[in-house]
Amino acid sequence: TVFDDDEAGTFGTAQIQIGLQYDDKKKRFKIFVMQLCNVGALTQQQDQKIYVRVAVLPCSETTSCLFRTESLGPSDTLVYKELFWVSISHSALCRKTLRIDVCSVKQSHHEHCLGGAEISLAEVNCSGEKSTCWYNLLADKHLKKQSKK
Amino acid sequence: TVFDDDEAGTFGTAQIQIGLQYDDKKKRFKIFVMQLCNVGALTQQQDQKIYVRVAVLPCSETTSCLFRTESLGPSDTLVYKELFWVSISHSALCRKTLRIDVCSVKQSHHEHCLGGAEISLAEVNCSGEKSTCWYNLLADKHLKKQSKK
Repeated sequence: TVFDDDEAGTFGTAQIQIGLQYDDKKKRFKIFVMQLCNVGALTQQQDQKIYVRVAVLPCSETTSCLFRTESLGPSDTLVYKELFWVSISHSALCRKTLRIDVCSVKQSHHEHCLGGAEISLAEVNCSGEKSTCWYNLLADKHLKKQSKK
Repeated sequence: TVFDDDEAGTFGTAQIQIGLQYDDKKKRFKIFVMQLCNVGALTQQQDQKIYVRVAVLPCSETTSCLFRTESLGPSDTLVYKELFWVSISHSALCRKTLRIDVCSVKQSHHEHCLGGAEISLAEVNCSGEKSTCWYNLLADKHLKKQSKK
């Protein structure tokens, strides 16, 4: 049986638009956190401010690998347009994975992540072109449910 | 400072080769689990049999979303060449994320996953062409370390 959109289990999916670019001359990898859409698919609470956390994993001992955008919202679409970069050789970059987490601001100062995406950098190109894509955000609740099976 | 290969923190990275193909006529999504390389980067134990678990998330209530390959090994390169498919519309597929886990066989019958990768299907094409890529596997230990920060 073919399951259709309604059966996919959510009323929409939160997505994040990310741009990636490797500058081979300067040996720099640039990560553009562009925008989030359909934030409502990740959380029931409508009054939260949301930020995006980016990690280049596995983490290096010598360079920072963790970045955070400003907090925005509340809104169902959030436009960040923030740029982060890491100094790294192309061969080292190709062994990394970009972990993107969408987190809400809590007064408790604990990070509370609502969902995320992973982007393997194994085949990241070094042509200098910027590639911009949308990525589905998997709600953390789905992952937990899955790992119990 | 540019960190080079040695500073990347691992002696190599485990990778998995996956082929993806959407058949628009039959409304089927095919997942080819092709091969694993550099398994040694995920585990110290050299005598384990390894299988690959594939989940199409979020899980549908009506269709199976979880698949497992046979167990192979021990070897640093493991060739599976196994095909799984799900019946799904293209629009529903575009809201899914493919979660790949590499797990070792334990006598306790508990799943023990060594590492994994996520592939967002937001921009999966429906041209019928098969796209084959290598994906870095992020060791579960790295993820746990990161979330403690």
